[in-house]
Amino acid sequence: MADKKLITPRKLQGFWELMPNEELVFEDILDKLKNVFKNNCFLPLDTPNVEYSEILLAKSGGDLDKEIYRFTKGDNDICLRYDLTVPLARFVSMNYNILDFPFKRFQIGKVYRGERPQKGRFREFYQCDADIIGESLPLTYDAECIKLYEPCFKALNLETIVEISNRKILAGFFESLGLENKTVDLMIVVDKVDKLSKDDIISLLKENGLNDNQIDDLFTILNAKGSFEEIKNKIKNITDKSTFQEGLSELEIVNSRLQAMRMRDDTYCFNLAIVRGHNYYTGTVFEAYIKGKRNLGAIGGGGRYDNLCGHFIDKQVQGVGMSIGITRLFDILRTENMIDFNTSSVDVGIITFDEETLNYGLSLMTELRENGIKADVLNEEKSFKAKMKEANRKQIPFIIICGEDELKSNTYTLKNMETSTQVVLPLSKIIQELNKK
Amino acid sequence: MADKKLITPRKLQGFWELMPNEELVFEDILDKLKNVFKNNCFLPLDTPNVEYSEILLAKSGGDLDKEIYRFTKGDNDICLRYDLTVPLARFVSMNYNILDFPFKRFQIGKVYRGERPQKGRFREFYQCDADIIGESLPLTYDAECIKLYEPCFKALNLETIVEISNRKILAGFFESLGLENKTVDLMIVVDKVDKLSKDDIISLLKENGLNDNQIDDLFTILNAKGSFEEIKNKIKNITDKSTFQEGLSELEIVNSRLQAMRMRDDTYCFNLAIVRGHNYYTGTVFEAYIKGKRNLGAIGGGGRYDNLCGHFIDKQVQGVGMSIGITRLFDILRTENMIDFNTSSVDVGIITFDEETLNYGLSLMTELRENGIKADVLNEEKSFKAKMKEANRKQIPFIIICGEDELKSNTYTLKNMETSTQVVLPLSKIIQELNKK
Repeated sequence: MADKKLITPRKLQGFWELMPNEELVFEDILDKLKNVFKNNCFLPLDTPNVEYSEILLAKSGGDLDKEIYRFTKGDNDICLRYDLTVPLARFVSMNYNILDFPFKRFQIGKVYRGERPQKGRFREFYQCDADIIGESLPLTYDAECIKLYEPCFKALNLETIVEISNRKILAGFFESLGLENKTVDLMIVVDKVDKLSKDDIISLLKENGLNDNQIDDLFTILNAKGSFEEIKNKIKNITDKSTFQEGLSELEIVNSRLQAMRMRDDTYCFNLAIVRGHNYYTGTVFEAYIKGKRNLGAIGGGGRYDNLCGHFIDKQVQGVGMSIGITRLFDILRTENMIDFNTSSVDVGIITFDEETLNYGLSLMTELRENGIKADVLNEEKSFKAKMKEANRKQIPFIIICGEDELKSNTYTLKNMETSTQVVLPLSKIIQELNKK
Repeated sequence: MADKKLITPRKLQGFWELMPNEELVFEDILDKLKNVFKNNCFLPLDTPNVEYSEILLAKSGGDLDKEIYRFTKGDNDICLRYDLTVPLARFVSMNYNILDFPFKRFQIGKVYRGERPQKGRFREFYQCDADIIGESLPLTYDAECIKLYEPCFKALNLETIVEISNRKILAGFFESLGLENKTVDLMIVVDKVDKLSKDDIISLLKENGLNDNQIDDLFTILNAKGSFEEIKNKIKNITDKSTFQEGLSELEIVNSRLQAMRMRDDTYCFNLAIVRGHNYYTGTVFEAYIKGKRNLGAIGGGGRYDNLCGHFIDKQVQGVGMSIGITRLFDILRTENMIDFNTSSVDVGIITFDEETLNYGLSLMTELRENGIKADVLNEEKSFKAKMKEANRKQIPFIIICGEDELKSNTYTLKNMETSTQVVLPLSKIIQELNKK
């Protein structure tokens, strides 16, 4: 082996990989979210990480996007998926005749984007989406997706606030100015309102044809933030254009459903500057922030879309969905020291000394595991002192010593590693004692 | 939209995708296995699905294998991983100085093989591995990996039997015949003993240099199956070659550790015809079968390997691991009707009639969900009869009717869909009643 050429072990840059103690916490977060989704009657879906390029690029008319991992295998032109929404559209389209609508599905999975890796940006990362799909979805489902953030973040011990808008309000306003052809560009400008200076925003608006009065009106809308009544009073007289008023009525219904669902007042508000980047949103849009940490950016968002399957089947399929940016959220929690990674994967370490005490300890290990206690024999051939050191380093909270004396008297010495106290107990008492903790 | 060209929605052949009711069961299986691994003090690991080709192909000296999904992105030559073992080797090599050994990790993830799709073979499928890695691992860890099948399959309500061998026994036997250079080829022949006729096996053995007496001895070994004492008595005198006797002693220790861990006699046996396909196994090897269904093939296997990281770092790193073929196992359970897929994702459907009763029902929905009951308002605008039909089709076990009468008296009508009985109850009693089920 000495003269064999070694290959430097390395991982692709920007690809998500945690150390095991971090992964333990990350999986715990995923499990908690999955339980909330199931409790809210969402069904799990798991689609392939790879799809035909034709499917994934349907939206862009087959154009090659630099950000996409695309390759050929045999005769197949295939891509790694870049989101979970296009695979959902493909799945719903393929199974349109056998699915029960409304179809409530959640999916947590890896997606791929060939971006230049940088802080907070990954090439392989997790997305976590919950969507409700149907042929005709009342606005109650928009409210359900918004409300869903509450139990999700409660499960993670985080306080969040969801900011809600409806794209029809701004679309209707631009229509009232005769600028309906510029709506897409103007939405992109509005989406930057938090990132650019007010002067920069104003000059972009002017480039797109707005005059000073119109810009004032727009800022009245964008600055409207608060309860539904508050924002309604501020903006209702700006225009009577039907799209605008429809957006306001839809928000009113969503607000009323949220109240019926007992969403707490302090966990949501309306903010008409929310538009979301994606142009497929057609009505309700929302973003979720950690309370008191709005500066960290949205950790989730979603909204209503009216034509999920348009590229694949000749049916109008609506949807409303929410997502949580779990890779980013985990990154924030880690950076802000909001997670304790010092949990041991072992509840009890068992120390033995020779063949006989090893067998005695292994029997105990099985018994404890069968009682739901994470017990592990410290099994390498090393001294008692070295094993105690190992237990300390691994922050194992309890140690059970299985020595010759213990074997003879059919007992075990239980040591609390934090208090350094120890007691000699028979098996039944050991299990009682550990279950107390 | 009418004149837009539609793209036929299709999924890549051989890529694993379940319907939501199946996925619910599959995820339940994965969750149960994860809990067992954690209870046995294994840490989770999640490595990227994509690695540098140089890393994944290290074993084969960089040769392109037709079965591997390989492509380039920018300057990077990359592959979809084809197993979880090489990524583990890369991870351990990269983090050798910071990992705590013995390092017990489990990983459940998708892997990719460009095989021709056929029944029971997938191009994207799940692997589920648990390995123990260290610099010097006593045989207790081999026993721990074997014993691990017991709680795993108990969690899935399956009875299994693990068949155990040690590669040193056959290797030592071939050495005793002066055929040590043919060991790799001969192991491949032995691995086929279940698949080919005895005559075909014999002619393959003759081609590899065995004479009739030696073939008789080999079959004495291969037919040895039973308790450790039984197989020892049958084969111990075949040769005193040290490798052969070492293999026997190792099996004896593993057997003694399994007894100490209270592995039930009827859940394991020794079968010296087990060799496993992979040549990296160096000692203990084993395969797991569903009891009474050996004809369906092994649903898991594993063993001891002595040089995990040899291609990446100049350290001798040992390991012993077990795996469960969960994609295949799920396929078998489904085909053999061993799974009930008729579980509803909804415990209680709520039926409302108008704006007021909808809000009444939504409030109930929130209350029930907060009490861990999967409640869902049947929310589309359709008749009572149509909603009852939907509840029946979805096999929802209970319905709560929120009508005008119920709203006035602040009660709910709870209907058991199986017995068709119904009672009118206040909220606290509704929760009590549902929690009983």
